Amino acid sequence: MQRYFIDQAYQSIVEISGEPHHHMSRVMRMSVDDQVFLVFNDQTAIKAKIVAIDSDHVRLEEVEKEKMQRELPIQITVASGFPKGEKLELIVQKGTELGAHDFVAFPGESSVAKWDTKKQKKKQQRLNKIAQEAAEQSHRQVLPTVRFASEKELIASFSEYEAVLIAYEESAKQGEQAQLVQTFQQMTAGEKLLVVFGPEGGLTPKEIEKFQAAGAKLCGLGPRILRTETAPFYLLSAASFYFELQH
Amino acid sequence: MQRYFIDQAYQSIVEISGEPHHHMSRVMRMSVDDQVFLVFNDQTAIKAKIVAIDSDHVRLEEVEKEKMQRELPIQITVASGFPKGEKLELIVQKGTELGAHDFVAFPGESSVAKWDTKKQKKKQQRLNKIAQEAAEQSHRQVLPTVRFASEKELIASFSEYEAVLIAYEESAKQGEQAQLVQTFQQMTAGEKLLVVFGPEGGLTPKEIEKFQAAGAKLCGLGPRILRTETAPFYLLSAASFYFELQH
Repeated sequence: MQRYFIDQAYQSIVEISGEPHHHMSRVMRMSVDDQVFLVFNDQTAIKAKIVAIDSDHVRLEEVEKEKMQRELPIQITVASGFPKGEKLELIVQKGTELGAHDFVAFPGESSVAKWDTKKQKKKQQRLNKIAQEAAEQSHRQVLPTVRFASEKELIASFSEYEAVLIAYEESAKQGEQAQLVQTFQQMTAGEKLLVVFGPEGGLTPKEIEKFQAAGAKLCGLGPRILRTETAPFYLLSAASFYFELQH
Repeated sequence: MQRYFIDQAYQSIVEISGEPHHHMSRVMRMSVDDQVFLVFNDQTAIKAKIVAIDSDHVRLEEVEKEKMQRELPIQITVASGFPKGEKLELIVQKGTELGAHDFVAFPGESSVAKWDTKKQKKKQQRLNKIAQEAAEQSHRQVLPTVRFASEKELIASFSEYEAVLIAYEESAKQGEQAQLVQTFQQMTAGEKLLVVFGPEGGLTPKEIEKFQAAGAKLCGLGPRILRTETAPFYLLSAASFYFELQH
């Protein structure tokens, strides 16, 4: 069943125009009595049926609340040092499917990609669109957002999280295997985890030092060396396995 | 350090020509005393140093065995119903990084992609090349291979595995969450697990029935609906978390 994120708080009867209306009426050619999922910006998700539709508006009524919990019990933020090419698109698309709460992109010291403010804005729009499509497709109850931050802003945000991890290739090489499990064990529902991933060239020792000084902990993701876009998939899948299948 | 898969059994002194020689001498411009990792087809991995190099051959001597275990304790085979476009390339690349032992592609009933034998052969070469590059980059000790199989051949192979799972979207929708954890708990080092993933359209009820009749079990991968190429990343990451970080 089609799923739409509606940028307003939950209401049992709702009138919609703009893009969701266009998609229902023109793309899907829906009519009265057709059903969809609506997800409001307070994370309430309902099954709703169309009771009226015209060329500008569609009116829907709640059938029932969505019963299934679709969101990870902890909120995970994926912070990626600007990677090359379209990798951030892949991280946001798959990361959204895998349950990331939101995304931050920051200029890593070894990032090859340099995006000026204008380019960032365009990229951000594109990435938010990708997140929305992936959130609809994967039945999310939260619409992940993507923001850009300087290194300073990223570090300043550490205090908003109960835990901050640095996915560090050298940890994998040295066989560090305990930190991720320990961190999951210490976290409880509703808490926030930030995980920082380097760009292709990795994080520099200087960056690591600054992140650690601000409270972040180094963390290995198994014994194989993962590409910058693959590491977040591992982290999010492991979190789902631990919090949603094992506990 | 650069890593090369050598298609011969382990030897402490080895002379190499062909592609690895070309890569060492021309691409990397290596010379005497430079070090590399060599992985033999019996899975022995060594650190070796160049003792002689000319325009056709390079001679290397073992420095030491690679100490770290890089391979998952269970062997996981990823079987994918032919997906569209370049998705199989993504599955093989990321799946190799994440530790898959090997890959099987089969024509799912709802597969849109139809590859004839000639096209399959070309695709297989391309996929094996991608697996090799990803295995070198991620420091694997096994070189995953990709093969094509009919549905009949796939089912006939079930008996070679200690466990066969079907990643089934409907399981996720219905909240099935126990099978993956149970399967991991029952498996011990050296055992083989086959996991079957449908193409974009999913597996049909008829396929599910045939797979179940041959001993496969339905398995959910958390409460979100994953795309056909994302589901194997989840499975492999969960296996690494369970077998390599938790145990």
